[in-house]
Amino acid sequence: MGRAKRMERVVALTKQLTDHPHQLFSFSYFCKKFEIAKSTLSEDVLAVKTGLELYGLGRVETLAGAAGGVRFIPGRSAKEDHDFLQDLAIKLSVPDRILPGGLLYTTDLLCIPDVVVRLGEIIMKHTRHLEPDCIMTVETRGIPLALFVARAFNVPLVMARHSSQITEGSAVNINYVSGSSKMIQTMAMPKRALQPGSRVLMVDDFMKGGGTARGMLNLAKEVGAEVVGKAFMIVTAEPENKMVDDYTALFMLHSVNELENKIFIEPVQVKE
Amino acid sequence: MGRAKRMERVVALTKQLTDHPHQLFSFSYFCKKFEIAKSTLSEDVLAVKTGLELYGLGRVETLAGAAGGVRFIPGRSAKEDHDFLQDLAIKLSVPDRILPGGLLYTTDLLCIPDVVVRLGEIIMKHTRHLEPDCIMTVETRGIPLALFVARAFNVPLVMARHSSQITEGSAVNINYVSGSSKMIQTMAMPKRALQPGSRVLMVDDFMKGGGTARGMLNLAKEVGAEVVGKAFMIVTAEPENKMVDDYTALFMLHSVNELENKIFIEPVQVKE
Repeated sequence: MGRAKRMERVVALTKQLTDHPHQLFSFSYFCKKFEIAKSTLSEDVLAVKTGLELYGLGRVETLAGAAGGVRFIPGRSAKEDHDFLQDLAIKLSVPDRILPGGLLYTTDLLCIPDVVVRLGEIIMKHTRHLEPDCIMTVETRGIPLALFVARAFNVPLVMARHSSQITEGSAVNINYVSGSSKMIQTMAMPKRALQPGSRVLMVDDFMKGGGTARGMLNLAKEVGAEVVGKAFMIVTAEPENKMVDDYTALFMLHSVNELENKIFIEPVQVKE
Repeated sequence: MGRAKRMERVVALTKQLTDHPHQLFSFSYFCKKFEIAKSTLSEDVLAVKTGLELYGLGRVETLAGAAGGVRFIPGRSAKEDHDFLQDLAIKLSVPDRILPGGLLYTTDLLCIPDVVVRLGEIIMKHTRHLEPDCIMTVETRGIPLALFVARAFNVPLVMARHSSQITEGSAVNINYVSGSSKMIQTMAMPKRALQPGSRVLMVDDFMKGGGTARGMLNLAKEVGAEVVGKAFMIVTAEPENKMVDDYTALFMLHSVNELENKIFIEPVQVKE
């Protein structure tokens, strides 16, 4: 086996592993694909693992045994994540983002692929131990974030709606009270979207009172799914008591001051 | 420079390039990052290029000159794309997907990351020559697809809504007539979401009459953006005359027969 050939194979192995985060590939799959012996594959896998880890670009895990194989887990170093979130906090603090009513405009950042890929991977990292088998969100603004969390976990996304859709068949509907506005709202989910017993990680871009989150929680329970975790990009400092507890958040929004034209938002210190 | 070291570097280079599709990295960026001479980098880039192309995992382009650099363009071979779409057509033809009114349930497939990543890359491949600088869609079901098209192009996504949102500031609103139901509907977009002069690629999961697409078109024009293309995952065979023309589609839905419990959908033959 010449040197160039090995290099090309390792490039392809890198691409295929990193393209499918969390997917466990059997050793025999790659042995067959590359027409190589298992010992050679082991060396190649080690090269990918070392290369990615050396440059802080994620981890490669190998599992031994009959059900074993190799998989890629995305994620950067704690320092890189911290720097990324710090930088994003600065972007989120630009006074232009203040909307009437002391709201914060964030949609643009949530729709930049490079940004939301990283956010998705960071949320995955912090919630990985919960082992969700699907990600749930409610339309609309949280969808990009939730989708990239789903991508990082390699599990499907389930989207709740504010009304049931003819194009999605029969639905489960619940009513809930929005935490901040105290208005009664509806949330719906196609019956076929979520299986009973699913391990659901709820993801949304923003939480203030937690009413919407509570609604999602109830909707998931309604179909017999188990909500194993809740993750938000931004939570507000006020009100301190939310309608859901035990959640992961990346940013704490302390205040949006329309008069002084100032936003105070900072990354939440997460324990590794 | 030892062999192991080069291998690790090539792994990292592969990951970084493929993580940022379409992003042009200057040679000096990588020379500095890896602390290597330009000639060494050229060899490394060639290894990545050869490895990816050999296994049909995308292309690496190098641009010469002062504004030059290297970038990764995702995409598989025409045959692999064809096989993928053919396989998806079979999944889409399962009679379980028939909804009352002869509608087709597709949301689940559009929410599986591995599926929608590929769809996004295929749409990018077919529309690359249009050089869009943003992707536009309308909530909700088309968002995952549009987001992965945006990812493949490395450009932002812009989401139109069915009503203007307090959390997105002042908006441009239009009314439009839904092509199939003939109902008057509203579409809104935050004023700050789309810049005048932007080159917009419209993406949606489904088109029947084309009323919604027409609405998006008008909304984009309203803010002074230029719609350079329209791409849909599925278009229906009937009505033959849509309210928009000159579009890209991946699947043609010929019929959904509720009585006979049959769906006829097939990939559209696209010229390479």
